[in-house]
Amino acid sequence: MAEEAQTTGVVVAAENGSKSSPVVFAAVKPWLVVEAPKANDAVQFYKTAFGAEEVSRVNHPKRKAEHDLPLVLSAELKLGSSSIVVSDLTDDSSAPVKSVVSGSVFCLETEDVEAAVAKAVAAGAVSDGELTEVEGGCCGGRVGRVKDPYGNVWQICAPAKKCDDVAA
Amino acid sequence: MAEEAQTTGVVVAAENGSKSSPVVFAAVKPWLVVEAPKANDAVQFYKTAFGAEEVSRVNHPKRKAEHDLPLVLSAELKLGSSSIVVSDLTDDSSAPVKSVVSGSVFCLETEDVEAAVAKAVAAGAVSDGELTEVEGGCCGGRVGRVKDPYGNVWQICAPAKKCDDVAA
Repeated sequence: MAEEAQTTGVVVAAENGSKSSPVVFAAVKPWLVVEAPKANDAVQFYKTAFGAEEVSRVNHPKRKAEHDLPLVLSAELKLGSSSIVVSDLTDDSSAPVKSVVSGSVFCLETEDVEAAVAKAVAAGAVSDGELTEVEGGCCGGRVGRVKDPYGNVWQICAPAKKCDDVAA
Repeated sequence: MAEEAQTTGVVVAAENGSKSSPVVFAAVKPWLVVEAPKANDAVQFYKTAFGAEEVSRVNHPKRKAEHDLPLVLSAELKLGSSSIVVSDLTDDSSAPVKSVVSGSVFCLETEDVEAAVAKAVAAGAVSDGELTEVEGGCCGGRVGRVKDPYGNVWQICAPAKKCDDVAA
């Protein structure tokens, strides 16, 4: 169904928008807001656990005296073809939310689920039970699940099987 | 810093893993778990608000009598170059979490922030204040923020400016 051109952008007819031009989105980036000043630790965790690469970081301009490190306004990490953003929770008016974001669920596709789960656990994630065979979901076949130290759940699974429509 | 090859995969040395081969992740997919049976509505909302395209859907095999529609085990939507997964919360043991996931924050890059916000609001999102100029964060320049009917925050902003390191 999806056309080739749509792998890089989605066109939305903006009849109800303030302009008549279509709205095109580049990508969705999950934004993880952690309890300050843990963002720096979280960035390190995502690097170690998932091999994320830090692309950029903007520190909070106001450094509080009690903090050795400046608070992280936002750190952007590349993880596979996706990006995630990690921030310390601050009372800055430009902060995206006023509370810590936890309990989010992410799917991570990999060919080697066992190794990926072991690596994440070695880095400090908590394994959520045994690997299972799951139908449906973001990917198929063997599935592992870990919870990171910031309260988010990462479902690690193989990308192989396509989730085709299944009649109920 | 990021090399070209790393736009399609991240290699993690899995010294602590169960195998010696490196762990490679394809992508991160946010997984939105909504109160059953709202997943079908949520899919429609993300299509209308953000132009998401449904790639696949797996329904729950056990259809409850009181539901006109089968519950959604998972629906995968393409949004720009990213994918998101939407599910009804079920008591199925294979469900990624045991509670509704809300309060997640996502960054959506687009060239036309005003039109994108207007489109999302027309589809049922709630605008979170005026457009502002924000430094840092997932993208730069003009930023709008909307909350979707499922409790998630979408920060809509221009991808233009790079988030380079800024000394505190």
